[in-house]
Amino acid sequence: MAPLMRTRHFRKDDAILCHGDKADNLWVVVSGWLKLTRQTPDGKETIIGLCTDGDILGEAALFAHAQYPYHAEVLGAEATVVVLPADVVRNLVKEDSSFSASIMHLLNERMFQAQLKLEHMSTMSAAQRLGCFLLRLCHSQEHGSRELDIPVEKHILAAFLGMKPETLSRSQQQLKEAGVVVKGQHIVINNITALRQYVCNSCSESGACDAEADDE
Amino acid sequence: MAPLMRTRHFRKDDAILCHGDKADNLWVVVSGWLKLTRQTPDGKETIIGLCTDGDILGEAALFAHAQYPYHAEVLGAEATVVVLPADVVRNLVKEDSSFSASIMHLLNERMFQAQLKLEHMSTMSAAQRLGCFLLRLCHSQEHGSRELDIPVEKHILAAFLGMKPETLSRSQQQLKEAGVVVKGQHIVINNITALRQYVCNSCSESGACDAEADDE
Repeated sequence: MAPLMRTRHFRKDDAILCHGDKADNLWVVVSGWLKLTRQTPDGKETIIGLCTDGDILGEAALFAHAQYPYHAEVLGAEATVVVLPADVVRNLVKEDSSFSASIMHLLNERMFQAQLKLEHMSTMSAAQRLGCFLLRLCHSQEHGSRELDIPVEKHILAAFLGMKPETLSRSQQQLKEAGVVVKGQHIVINNITALRQYVCNSCSESGACDAEADDE
Repeated sequence: MAPLMRTRHFRKDDAILCHGDKADNLWVVVSGWLKLTRQTPDGKETIIGLCTDGDILGEAALFAHAQYPYHAEVLGAEATVVVLPADVVRNLVKEDSSFSASIMHLLNERMFQAQLKLEHMSTMSAAQRLGCFLLRLCHSQEHGSRELDIPVEKHILAAFLGMKPETLSRSQQQLKEAGVVVKGQHIVINNITALRQYVCNSCSESGACDAEADDE
């Protein structure tokens, strides 16, 4: 009998799944960073997601005959991912109503986050959008300081945040006043409360976005 | 016994549901136009959705103890909406695995559309984004012409599309070359195929987005 789930290791630039391939598996990131991209017919690459610990990808596997709607590739040195076969997931959805309720919660949460990111394009400055991205990596931590390592090249992070690389550099400078110090890919947030004040006042969730995610 | 669903009529500017209220119902728009908005603490209003025939709102009702994450208000003269009580919907989800599969499909589709709109902010021109909005109102019609009445004021449509009102005016001018004629709130698309060519070449779905929605 095939195991229910298995762990797989990948190295920098490995493709984990490809846009248009049959969605055979649901994936959960254990460690490392992935870039989710899509390509337009006129040749533009768009970065629709940056995933790390705890993020789920390949939700298309929940549905029969579905294809992955993006390409996923490893950033940084390596990544570890847990793989769940689509048929196992789909059977669970069919037979376990509490599992399917969790999945609905997850999908609703993802939709909400995408809508929120869209909102931020008009309500937030570039520096606030960078701050929001950093706060999400702090998960539910509301106070104190935090150090983060983000092995994502500047032009990729800028594209994901919907800004030019030079705007990202300027935003990093501006975040100093909220106590954020950027040294290459190492980031120190000296005071999460101060960063929240700087960022969340321009968001209709006013900092309650993590609370909803934690409800799941 | 309370009826499973009922039809309600609203007039211009009526609030159908309020941000933060307990999500007691799921709503389906039968006719008319609604504006979905959210407010940031620093006083900016963002328009996160424009809904019309067939659109669903209040998905929060799928989840116990959830609140509506936006405010919904009638645009244009009137709107008709079907209301489904949350407990009916949640029971169906629990007891009918094919119903819950449809809901998952719907949530996944909504997430996908929000991500696509985010993508378009960086891959499409303002005129293409307006064209994409018009094509969605044509649903699965792929050829021929179409007339649309959109009772949405210019500043609201512009805000929803993430552009300034003057950019929207310029975009309407630019769409003339793709055969789109705008006269106030009445819009004539002379050639849907030509508009698709103008728009969908800059989208990673290359016009297949409707196909996915129709799969549901």
